[in-house]
Amino acid sequence: MTETLALPADAPAKRSDRIPVAVLGATGSVGQRFVQLLEAHPWFRLHEVVASDRSAGKRYADAADWRLDSILPAEASAMTVKQLGARLESRLLFSGLDSSVAGEAEEEYANAGCVVVSNSRNHRMDADVPLLIPEINAEHLGAIEQQRRRRGGRGCIVTNPNCSVIGLAMAVAPIERDFGIEQIHVTTMQAISGAGYNGVASYAILDNVIPYIGGGEEEKIESEPRKILGRWSGDRFEPAPMTISAHVNRVPVIDGHLMTISLRLRGAAAAASAAGRRAGAPAPTLEAIREAIETFRGEPQELGLPSAPKQPIHYLDAPDRPQPRLDRDREQGMSVSVGRLRRCPILHYRMVALVHNTIRGAAGAALLNAELLEAKGLLR
Amino acid sequence: MTETLALPADAPAKRSDRIPVAVLGATGSVGQRFVQLLEAHPWFRLHEVVASDRSAGKRYADAADWRLDSILPAEASAMTVKQLGARLESRLLFSGLDSSVAGEAEEEYANAGCVVVSNSRNHRMDADVPLLIPEINAEHLGAIEQQRRRRGGRGCIVTNPNCSVIGLAMAVAPIERDFGIEQIHVTTMQAISGAGYNGVASYAILDNVIPYIGGGEEEKIESEPRKILGRWSGDRFEPAPMTISAHVNRVPVIDGHLMTISLRLRGAAAAASAAGRRAGAPAPTLEAIREAIETFRGEPQELGLPSAPKQPIHYLDAPDRPQPRLDRDREQGMSVSVGRLRRCPILHYRMVALVHNTIRGAAGAALLNAELLEAKGLLR
Amino acid sequence: MTETLALPADAPAKRSDRIPVAVLGATGSVGQRFVQLLEAHPWFRLHEVVASDRSAGKRYADAADWRLDSILPAEASAMTVKQLGARLESRLLFSGLDSSVAGEAEEEYANAGCVVVSNSRNHRMDADVPLLIPEINAEHLGAIEQQRRRRGGRGCIVTNPNCSVIGLAMAVAPIERDFGIEQIHVTTMQAISGAGYNGVASYAILDNVIPYIGGGEEEKIESEPRKILGRWSGDRFEPAPMTISAHVNRVPVIDGHLMTISLRLRGAAAAASAAGRRAGAPAPTLEAIREAIETFRGEPQELGLPSAPKQPIHYLDAPDRPQPRLDRDREQGMSVSVGRLRRCPILHYRMVALVHNTIRGAAGAALLNAELLEAKGLLR
Amino acid sequence: MTETLALPADAPAKRSDRIPVAVLGATGSVGQRFVQLLEAHPWFRLHEVVASDRSAGKRYADAADWRLDSILPAEASAMTVKQLGARLESRLLFSGLDSSVAGEAEEEYANAGCVVVSNSRNHRMDADVPLLIPEINAEHLGAIEQQRRRRGGRGCIVTNPNCSVIGLAMAVAPIERDFGIEQIHVTTMQAISGAGYNGVASYAILDNVIPYIGGGEEEKIESEPRKILGRWSGDRFEPAPMTISAHVNRVPVIDGHLMTISLRLRGAAAAASAAGRRAGAPAPTLEAIREAIETFRGEPQELGLPSAPKQPIHYLDAPDRPQPRLDRDREQGMSVSVGRLRRCPILHYRMVALVHNTIRGAAGAALLNAELLEAKGLLR
Repeated sequence: MTETLALPADAPAKRSDRIPVAVLGATGSVGQRFVQLLEAHPWFRLHEVVASDRSAGKRYADAADWRLDSILPAEASAMTVKQLGARLESRLLFSGLDSSVAGEAEEEYANAGCVVVSNSRNHRMDADVPLLIPEINAEHLGAIEQQRRRRGGRGCIVTNPNCSVIGLAMAVAPIERDFGIEQIHVTTMQAISGAGYNGVASYAILDNVIPYIGGGEEEKIESEPRKILGRWSGDRFEPAPMTISAHVNRVPVIDGHLMTISLRLRGAAAAASAAGRRAGAPAPTLEAIREAIETFRGEPQELGLPSAPKQPIHYLDAPDRPQPRLDRDREQGMSVSVGRLRRCPILHYRMVALVHNTIRGAAGAALLNAELLEAKGLLR
Repeated sequence: MTETLALPADAPAKRSDRIPVAVLGATGSVGQRFVQLLEAHPWFRLHEVVASDRSAGKRYADAADWRLDSILPAEASAMTVKQLGARLESRLLFSGLDSSVAGEAEEEYANAGCVVVSNSRNHRMDADVPLLIPEINAEHLGAIEQQRRRRGGRGCIVTNPNCSVIGLAMAVAPIERDFGIEQIHVTTMQAISGAGYNGVASYAILDNVIPYIGGGEEEKIESEPRKILGRWSGDRFEPAPMTISAHVNRVPVIDGHLMTISLRLRGAAAAASAAGRRAGAPAPTLEAIREAIETFRGEPQELGLPSAPKQPIHYLDAPDRPQPRLDRDREQGMSVSVGRLRRCPILHYRMVALVHNTIRGAAGAALLNAELLEAKGLLR
Repeated sequence: MTETLALPADAPAKRSDRIPVAVLGATGSVGQRFVQLLEAHPWFRLHEVVASDRSAGKRYADAADWRLDSILPAEASAMTVKQLGARLESRLLFSGLDSSVAGEAEEEYANAGCVVVSNSRNHRMDADVPLLIPEINAEHLGAIEQQRRRRGGRGCIVTNPNCSVIGLAMAVAPIERDFGIEQIHVTTMQAISGAGYNGVASYAILDNVIPYIGGGEEEKIESEPRKILGRWSGDRFEPAPMTISAHVNRVPVIDGHLMTISLRLRGAAAAASAAGRRAGAPAPTLEAIREAIETFRGEPQELGLPSAPKQPIHYLDAPDRPQPRLDRDREQGMSVSVGRLRRCPILHYRMVALVHNTIRGAAGAALLNAELLEAKGLLR
Repeated sequence: MTETLALPADAPAKRSDRIPVAVLGATGSVGQRFVQLLEAHPWFRLHEVVASDRSAGKRYADAADWRLDSILPAEASAMTVKQLGARLESRLLFSGLDSSVAGEAEEEYANAGCVVVSNSRNHRMDADVPLLIPEINAEHLGAIEQQRRRRGGRGCIVTNPNCSVIGLAMAVAPIERDFGIEQIHVTTMQAISGAGYNGVASYAILDNVIPYIGGGEEEKIESEPRKILGRWSGDRFEPAPMTISAHVNRVPVIDGHLMTISLRLRGAAAAASAAGRRAGAPAPTLEAIREAIETFRGEPQELGLPSAPKQPIHYLDAPDRPQPRLDRDREQGMSVSVGRLRRCPILHYRMVALVHNTIRGAAGAALLNAELLEAKGLLR
């Protein structure tokens, strides 16, 4: 069972002190995770649930086919679902909307002054929208100022990456930061929950692997990390100068995207590495790479954000780890796990990474993003 | 249900005309597949079943915990299991022995004049032992002459590759043959049957993926294809000049090893390919690669060997194929399936391949090897 | 891979000699099985494929999302899908229609003179429609005469039972025939394919069991066997005087419905059984029950119908059989398997039974029904 | 992820105040659950880990192949495994020993004055050993006095039932208590973890169900509940006068035993029920049964034992619940879930029940037993 995110010692005692929020697309799989994770959140409280025509007007308990292994929170249960597009009382909106409607709806709410923290893919690559992983690129929040100028108000959209991308970007970020990466070759083995509750028929996936995921999954993995690992120059995003090749697969696993990663360093580090391999010279050793991974921290840790894992990346020593079922729930599903770091005979290094796709890779990611916004005073 | 291999029209009518064979390690998972596939074989008939101490002396039906989804053949059922090491009446031996005993036992039988067609790993890399995939390197049988000289008799060992390697080598062989390959980057997703019946606990693999396989699986995948795709110079094997990087994973699939493959061409083809990508020039197009794959044939097809698939590699157009459950049984499990051929942003090309690991990747492979030996007059 | 049904020695050589047939609902899961099983059928040939609006006018290959593990037959592939309700050239129609449309459509075709051999549930309990399992109640075909009188033509509907019911009815038929059954208590563990390709989401069933199946599954199991095991009196069906209690469950199995069955005999046999248990007297011994099961044969076996299994029920001795994956394909999926026959401390006997739900339990059942019709001259 | 058992508000702050305990068979699957559940236990602290020869002398982290989805507690990790049979410092021993050694070892420790709280089957049916489910038969602890007399000391053995039996006994206990049960017919669908980590090969259970479990599973289910639901007369256990028929199955589920249950009331209640069904009379209605289930409480709830669920049985309204994956973790795995209560056409009532087999059905059950012993002053 997935534990709800832990409350820090200084959590506000009263629910009424918490910031009211709305969840857009509240009946879907990501929406349900938002509802679950918000139940005990120390800073935010669920105030409105919003969904499409079909659900609007119903009690949330009736509109949502609750599928999580925790009990539907009583307060959410009794809420009446509001219609997408309706004027909302909350200013902070979490969006788990389907991409078929997210583009326009999120834009409208942002233009109306709301802060939309979205898990949808529609605005991820927009020129002034942060594609945020707080441990990696908190400075991308600088783009919000420009975005607000464009909108002429206090509204904005902040997005989190595709579920696989979060795992990949987190796993390589310490290496990119310390040594610079030129190429990443990744093969993913993704859990069925990534496709939503009804996304993958059991007849399709039992005793099977499907070497394909629709919706441009490979393209997202090949492009989003470049924005994430790049920099905000003050007026535009400059992507990291790396090339990514992604093969994606769907596997019969409930939660947890596993991926094998090979990567090539760039510039001086690469030269040193190549030299090191030939001559035994002491440049980027496996130990140095590993240390970069284990000591990796970011603003969420410094700020003590409520959903922040203490250690963003867990390096596992056992030769057969990480594994989805055994490691996906580390730090309430908010840590990425990495293992099997070793030399690659073709690129420079290789390793295995795992991310809980519906927590760190979706709803938990958005929550952490909102916490960073609050901590930085950007929700006001 | 796996169909038994089809009988050609001119199959010998009488069982007594067929060549008597023994199966070493007959009670294990590969051994059982041998027994199954031999039941209706037109050239060979099962004459002896051989296993370790624990099983020796028992009826085969009692010694083997039959786990295949076809019925245990009646003739095999009634045979008394002979002790490994005993003198056998058959000269052709199929070995599915565990690697802990295969090394010595196979050597002894070969020195005693037997032709040992083995699925075990022990002698695969021996200097004068063919690591045979008949469609690819039938000329490696030239090594047998040297091997027989060494042994001073008519005995010899012929091996087939690791189950994943067969899939990989088959999938890339047409490209290597026509264009030359410099680098292969492969991530496998391997079925549980590859570990034997009791190899993977259900508690370990349900709702899970294990990013590791013991016994040097990655090392085999990184070395065996070089021997297979290399040449027999007349007195030694010259490995193909390529580098391979393998990540292996165990997935909850019964049969069928799926793999994502990226590869870089070498020399002139590579230059042309690089040029082609930049300049739109007409060198190694995806169509040319695909045609190489689809038209690929070898001696088994020319000779019409009983276990030979009509088309060794099936190229599948659907964007989400091949899939283990849907494609593993093509041509009775003897064809390899390939799909999703496309450009790789890092190496040159990428694709997905699938092999039935216990048929084409094990017992069926050995059977085809033995058929080639017979067709070439090397069993006499 | 499921083998196609075997051709008898005297199969008509020429396809043109075979009876042309249409498949209604050809794009669905049962429809696809019809198309698969008809490919090599010695008496029938697929002539028309019929489906709803959405598919009508398309090539079958495009309209059907082919999901079976054999290759889509070329002839079917090229056919244009006809619209449900259109006038057809074939007189024999196999129906795999969804129950939402089957009721009316089948009725219309039957009234128009067609022989509709249906797998749908709509007309199963109709007063003059046979609910046919040829081994059990071939004499129910007597109802066709009355049905034709009602329709005023040569058309009629013949149905086969629910997939679980076929397994249950077959397993108990020999006992009912020889001893008489008063009560049956059954718990099913049903495969996902029984719900159609998209019927069960993987998120719902992986690492799970669902103790419920919609659409009145338990009610069907509690009523259909009474009609099947009853008799046609000449003008009405008289149900067998037994009571059935069914608990149903969905399990993560691809194909094959497994069920545990306890039953109480009726009348004299029951008395003898009760006496026997107390006094050791020699009435309905387990051996007698078992012999009834193993020697059970019916008209399909006597007539040598092409799809008939040689032995309708396989009794398995091993204490842990039958099992879905290992036993569902016995006799091309047309045999029911039974094991673990023993005394029940509450009712009289208990046992385990298995049926391949999409072959013997659906498309194969309808095919066998049509074969019986043809053999009895009822297709003319 | 399974949450550790919650700490009550008044938990002792200091670890040193807690009662030291040893875990016998600490490296096995039940042993690991004991270690996990003891980590944050408010009354007990893990002091010694004990296992067989093979593990003795090793660090626990090295001896145990830790397979739970929580992290191995640091304190346990560093402990040196003691040899089974060695003199221990703890007086309270939790036993997860394999039944091949549990019989003698537990007997010896009890005779030496230890309180052995065992999950093993060996002593469950002993004439003076409680087979304890604290909500049901806390008064069975009366047998300890007699047992201590026999042993001539303060030692004793207290056992918990088989994992399926706990689910069954809990589910029917309220009905037995209020109305009296004559017959129970149960079919179980049991998780693989019930067989230990290596108990079920993945090749055996993927895409499969096995209708059999060795070790006398059905016999245990048919006998243990009679002792549990019976009474301690002061000098002997008088079994409940009921008959049970059990069919068991292994299904591809990680944790959680699901079971379908039909039952017949006895005596007056049965007569009323039969009358009620025929005549519409108002005796044991489904509502009355349900209320008995929902209001069921026992000593653990009254005493507020740390591991006690607030509500021992959760009745679920949804027509398709309980389900193993969704409901097994209710109240940290300590509650049993029941649903689908309805009339049975053969016996009187039927329903579905679920128990977390390794928590409430094993280690958690033993922990609760020990807590009851402590609360009753029986550990002194």
